[in-house]
Amino acid sequence: MLTVQNICAWIDDHAPFRYAQSWDHCGLQVGNPAAPVDRLLVALDPGSSTIGEAQQRGCQCLVTHHPLIFKPLEAVRVDQFPANLVVRALLAGVNVIVAHTNLDVARDGTNDQLSNMLALQAVDPLEADAAWQSEAIYGGMGRVGFLPEEMRLGDLQRMLENKLGMSGVRVVGDRHRPVQKVALCTGSGGGLLDRAISARVDVYVTGDIKYHDAQRALEEDLALVDIGHFGSERIIVEPLAAYLRSKAAKEGAAIEVFTAVGEKDPFSIA
Amino acid sequence: MLTVQNICAWIDDHAPFRYAQSWDHCGLQVGNPAAPVDRLLVALDPGSSTIGEAQQRGCQCLVTHHPLIFKPLEAVRVDQFPANLVVRALLAGVNVIVAHTNLDVARDGTNDQLSNMLALQAVDPLEADAAWQSEAIYGGMGRVGFLPEEMRLGDLQRMLENKLGMSGVRVVGDRHRPVQKVALCTGSGGGLLDRAISARVDVYVTGDIKYHDAQRALEEDLALVDIGHFGSERIIVEPLAAYLRSKAAKEGAAIEVFTAVGEKDPFSIA
Amino acid sequence: MLTVQNICAWIDDHAPFRYAQSWDHCGLQVGNPAAPVDRLLVALDPGSSTIGEAQQRGCQCLVTHHPLIFKPLEAVRVDQFPANLVVRALLAGVNVIVAHTNLDVARDGTNDQLSNMLALQAVDPLEADAAWQSEAIYGGMGRVGFLPEEMRLGDLQRMLENKLGMSGVRVVGDRHRPVQKVALCTGSGGGLLDRAISARVDVYVTGDIKYHDAQRALEEDLALVDIGHFGSERIIVEPLAAYLRSKAAKEGAAIEVFTAVGEKDPFSIA
Amino acid sequence: MLTVQNICAWIDDHAPFRYAQSWDHCGLQVGNPAAPVDRLLVALDPGSSTIGEAQQRGCQCLVTHHPLIFKPLEAVRVDQFPANLVVRALLAGVNVIVAHTNLDVARDGTNDQLSNMLALQAVDPLEADAAWQSEAIYGGMGRVGFLPEEMRLGDLQRMLENKLGMSGVRVVGDRHRPVQKVALCTGSGGGLLDRAISARVDVYVTGDIKYHDAQRALEEDLALVDIGHFGSERIIVEPLAAYLRSKAAKEGAAIEVFTAVGEKDPFSIA
Amino acid sequence: MLTVQNICAWIDDHAPFRYAQSWDHCGLQVGNPAAPVDRLLVALDPGSSTIGEAQQRGCQCLVTHHPLIFKPLEAVRVDQFPANLVVRALLAGVNVIVAHTNLDVARDGTNDQLSNMLALQAVDPLEADAAWQSEAIYGGMGRVGFLPEEMRLGDLQRMLENKLGMSGVRVVGDRHRPVQKVALCTGSGGGLLDRAISARVDVYVTGDIKYHDAQRALEEDLALVDIGHFGSERIIVEPLAAYLRSKAAKEGAAIEVFTAVGEKDPFSIA
Amino acid sequence: MLTVQNICAWIDDHAPFRYAQSWDHCGLQVGNPAAPVDRLLVALDPGSSTIGEAQQRGCQCLVTHHPLIFKPLEAVRVDQFPANLVVRALLAGVNVIVAHTNLDVARDGTNDQLSNMLALQAVDPLEADAAWQSEAIYGGMGRVGFLPEEMRLGDLQRMLENKLGMSGVRVVGDRHRPVQKVALCTGSGGGLLDRAISARVDVYVTGDIKYHDAQRALEEDLALVDIGHFGSERIIVEPLAAYLRSKAAKEGAAIEVFTAVGEKDPFSIA
Repeated sequence: MLTVQNICAWIDDHAPFRYAQSWDHCGLQVGNPAAPVDRLLVALDPGSSTIGEAQQRGCQCLVTHHPLIFKPLEAVRVDQFPANLVVRALLAGVNVIVAHTNLDVARDGTNDQLSNMLALQAVDPLEADAAWQSEAIYGGMGRVGFLPEEMRLGDLQRMLENKLGMSGVRVVGDRHRPVQKVALCTGSGGGLLDRAISARVDVYVTGDIKYHDAQRALEEDLALVDIGHFGSERIIVEPLAAYLRSKAAKEGAAIEVFTAVGEKDPFSIA
Repeated sequence: MLTVQNICAWIDDHAPFRYAQSWDHCGLQVGNPAAPVDRLLVALDPGSSTIGEAQQRGCQCLVTHHPLIFKPLEAVRVDQFPANLVVRALLAGVNVIVAHTNLDVARDGTNDQLSNMLALQAVDPLEADAAWQSEAIYGGMGRVGFLPEEMRLGDLQRMLENKLGMSGVRVVGDRHRPVQKVALCTGSGGGLLDRAISARVDVYVTGDIKYHDAQRALEEDLALVDIGHFGSERIIVEPLAAYLRSKAAKEGAAIEVFTAVGEKDPFSIA
Repeated sequence: MLTVQNICAWIDDHAPFRYAQSWDHCGLQVGNPAAPVDRLLVALDPGSSTIGEAQQRGCQCLVTHHPLIFKPLEAVRVDQFPANLVVRALLAGVNVIVAHTNLDVARDGTNDQLSNMLALQAVDPLEADAAWQSEAIYGGMGRVGFLPEEMRLGDLQRMLENKLGMSGVRVVGDRHRPVQKVALCTGSGGGLLDRAISARVDVYVTGDIKYHDAQRALEEDLALVDIGHFGSERIIVEPLAAYLRSKAAKEGAAIEVFTAVGEKDPFSIA
Repeated sequence: MLTVQNICAWIDDHAPFRYAQSWDHCGLQVGNPAAPVDRLLVALDPGSSTIGEAQQRGCQCLVTHHPLIFKPLEAVRVDQFPANLVVRALLAGVNVIVAHTNLDVARDGTNDQLSNMLALQAVDPLEADAAWQSEAIYGGMGRVGFLPEEMRLGDLQRMLENKLGMSGVRVVGDRHRPVQKVALCTGSGGGLLDRAISARVDVYVTGDIKYHDAQRALEEDLALVDIGHFGSERIIVEPLAAYLRSKAAKEGAAIEVFTAVGEKDPFSIA
Repeated sequence: MLTVQNICAWIDDHAPFRYAQSWDHCGLQVGNPAAPVDRLLVALDPGSSTIGEAQQRGCQCLVTHHPLIFKPLEAVRVDQFPANLVVRALLAGVNVIVAHTNLDVARDGTNDQLSNMLALQAVDPLEADAAWQSEAIYGGMGRVGFLPEEMRLGDLQRMLENKLGMSGVRVVGDRHRPVQKVALCTGSGGGLLDRAISARVDVYVTGDIKYHDAQRALEEDLALVDIGHFGSERIIVEPLAAYLRSKAAKEGAAIEVFTAVGEKDPFSIA
Repeated sequence: MLTVQNICAWIDDHAPFRYAQSWDHCGLQVGNPAAPVDRLLVALDPGSSTIGEAQQRGCQCLVTHHPLIFKPLEAVRVDQFPANLVVRALLAGVNVIVAHTNLDVARDGTNDQLSNMLALQAVDPLEADAAWQSEAIYGGMGRVGFLPEEMRLGDLQRMLENKLGMSGVRVVGDRHRPVQKVALCTGSGGGLLDRAISARVDVYVTGDIKYHDAQRALEEDLALVDIGHFGSERIIVEPLAAYLRSKAAKEGAAIEVFTAVGEKDPFSIA
């Protein structure tokens, strides 16, 4: 039967773990690489909801984009977050694999999904690591490109709400201004604001935008669209599951791949 | 006539600059301490809008909560933010005084304003600096207290939208859950999330909440209300202006104190 | 029934966790503070042997001197040491409590046990933390004192082998030299060699002595006796179990306290 | 009309800003890159004297070797040095461009000027950056070479006083000793003393020599000549102005280039 | 006559000083490079014993593997170790040359001596520095290889005791287990334990093994043999002396090379 | 007979070594604390000249203000400065004691000597360490005070040249400006320039002034007098010798105390 280690290897083919940032702990975070897997759940976050869902569905493996362990653990106790989730996964036999910044920068990763949704053209990375940029499956962090045609900022906001099926997308800038050149970065894109400014784009689409970055963008005449960290990254779940299913088919491996149905954006406005 | 230095001294009486965080550059940031002042504008942010408003109103002094210079300047050039605003203020004769983290922690500062708006009772600081906590005008960073009576999270959200005159307040948690014990921190309160959890409050009200903090709060069963950095701090402008007016009256000083009318939250959802 | 948290509180009464070094993660390292405990195992080390022994004996709690987690864990996987032991303890329902440097410095802790074995007189700490030294149950790190009477270094070596029931105790220095003034530090005492020299003792008794420290001691005319890290600290197990039993008796709590029978010094010479 | 940015580009052709040390903020330090320039002043230092001279002569641009801003500014206030000079330049419409360590290491920069004055032969850099040394206009920091013929140290001192038109040049070492192999570094050369010693020169010519470096040179049998920071670097002003005039002529640009007449060595002995 | 500097050059041919670790101060540590040498002592350690022996034998040069100065000296006083030995060597006219980590990694250095003693086959370095690994006389730190045939751990222990002429060799692991694949590192090999584990060897032979490393090896099912820092490195003395003698013969230089007879392991068990 | 250690104790009574800066290695730097002393030389610097003079005069002890070892020594070799001087002192039997920053801040130390020479009145320290300022023999670093009457800067320069018996004293500022309030710091005073400016003195007297500090002083309207590191500190030699002689007399100890006659300022202008 397939093992957790096999799944890790499939992900490494698609979004090599060596692409991850140095501070980021990708790969198997919880469990046993030798454990057999015939049911697998893909989700954005490794939380109570998705670990519970994996257990209910009888999945031995949970593949998520976000890490369960950011800061290394000094203890593994059920009264401390996120160690409580580690314990829960272990007791439920759910092995947790993380594909985080390696998936952000890979071809067909989070940034490519958002770029595709916007139908961007003439697309370049917003930031690229010289070590990997000659590799065909490396796409870089963030994207810069052009909308098929110019539109108003407010219309871009509505289009994104429609495509993402969410409300409360926030914009910075005059909603009547026309935009066509776009920078984007899934997740929390504040760290690449300088690059978006240098790239002289009309609008920067990302999540988790902080107030002082918004103020600066206004002064630099750069429009922003904040689609949320969840909104900008949940879109990776289906494509990642599809990749794993096709890989399984190619390998003749018997595995059922599910996508989480219970997770949702923690923020709501109504 | 009054000088810029006199205004600094008044603010120091109210919110001593020694209370500021070590990384924070409070006090006169731009201009001349000896410049005469008979018209003064109070605002949240020192940006194009408020510097322009100060100039139009003939104010020689702009008092803001947020700093104009966060990161020290390696050059002072009109093609670089925020140095361009520094140059603009200098050329317009607008002296910029900043009361930032000293005002956050002072009595009647930003945190007290928000606490008063919620009518909190049995109020304590969320974090206090041992060096100052014996001083009567020191209130500490953030507040913990109790609403006059229990209410539903969704009702707290609506109440805050009404009182702040804003829409799009975001909540994390079940909007039907009852809440009464509250932690709050104006501005960006993510750094005090641990303290809000340790204080075992029902809900934490702050701004600029990031996704992973929201996820963690959900797992810790802590509700959040994100009223925005702007929403949580714009409320200091009127009280600060009122303080300066009353100080002027007490001192028999001839000065007109205005509050900015043009600044608004950079984020909008519709 | 008693809980893991109760046991932690008992240990804190005896060897307060606040006495621990800042880099040391003492207290509950693995498990659930609310778990009930009626059988408890005390051991020097949290390894396969003692976790297995706890499980076999039906103990819900394992109290050890050495930590299971020294370096915080970036992942919790069964193919990585020591996370594999963390998982094993969790799956076996064995909660692991660590009393490490707090127990070294406490009255009746590791250093006092060794001092008592040598019947030292006029005993002082080798190093004391100014923050705690006024507290009666604080004894400091290492000890300095006098043997009841002068003896030859070789005789001290044999006496320690007899009392510890071990062979292979190593000495540095002429075995015929007389010694009476003694410094000691349980565990790895190399870091306090400077203090032993400054204290002008005849001999320093500790474990894990490295070659260059031995060379320096020879040049400084200081004799050394290396009783091993295990030899110097295993002696805490019975007294710690005795304390827990007497505490239970005093509190009228029903708990059986065992000491590990399977652990032994990893080093052997024959 | 020419702009400030054009002048920066000319300087970059002559002494590329990429050659500057990493801690050094070269290029436009104060003003507006788009400002028009038809009168320009070249000077060693950006101080009251030269900013005043630029203003009196109607120059929109001041090009100096020394930076106006060494340590980034936390505020821009007229009661703080050097921000007061920044404000003065801004209000006078004087844009300040700095060519500092980039000009030290460029061909025909400060070190080449001093080397030429001494008519050194068989000249090498005292220190070279591997990143640039293959570029023809890169000359390196400091120089090592040979005087056309051997002379006494005291005669070298007098020759430098004559050529630099200054008095009070200080020497370390016996003034009757013969010297021919010379190391030199314009500005403050203490940091390259080790290299001068390793190069086994007879004498090191530089400025701002500190006492303990002089003591060491005596013990190492190395003679020193301290021509002052001013003396060693003021010599760049005329050649830099000449370069800008010839560049303007080549480009057919209408610009008048002046050299400062009012600046002088701050130190005097009589 | 030969000078100290000549001896340094011979050693550099054999074990280039550029191979040394960056923290390690190899080469001439005490004395005068121009001093004449016709009698030379080779030893493991520069201590009272070997400096005295050099003086008694009329040697002007002492070549050791271990440094005399590890931590740079803030003073050179006879009441402080190791400065007292520095003074003693200077007053006795004994120049001290150190070949430490450069000799560990060189061909025919400490690691090769131990590898040869074990008759290892198919030998690779345990760790290699990419900067040097193409050089023929570079061998790397530690070695991995195979015993000519499988033997029991206890038999390996006895064989090493016999070959090294020492007692008290310590083992970790079941002495009946068979071993054939070996990692070794002379001196203190704790820092390469991770590499020995990754190399999946049966046993790791080194010195100065600490308790927690022994515990970890047990859990990782890796056997250890601790032959002591002295035991693992004293074996370099004769080969190094032989090299110097053959070099002298080749150069036709008149020099007598002795090996120290007085130094011995500071540790003893009986 | 007196020993080197006795001399150290006398100096400690006068200028306690605990007053020294944390980076400064004061006390016995070279030699043997138990060596007998009946002839002693006091000097500013421990160099070839003064070590030679001590040897010629048969002195067993050399007491200097400046350290021989600033940067700890990785080797003690005669071809490296300053280790060559350490070896020379050792071989000549000259024990070197350093009273550096402890003597700068002590009553009757270097700063008090210069203050006395200027007959300053109403004298305060320029900088004081809170740990010691309650001790009567602690005077602080640098001094601030008033000349008995106002004089011109040029006259102060000439007065200092006369009193110090030196030429080439450098001034910064208009030599006709009147000065009365004075800051001073012996040695290299650049690090206290900020304090001299804050103290609003007319003139700062110190040594080793660098160009950019001179430029800044000009802009701050602060005059400077650079009397050289040697000029500002050589004045301590006679008073320190006098102290040691009077201490010897008080203790009835037979010791001859000399002051160095051969050392002179390394810099000369003619």
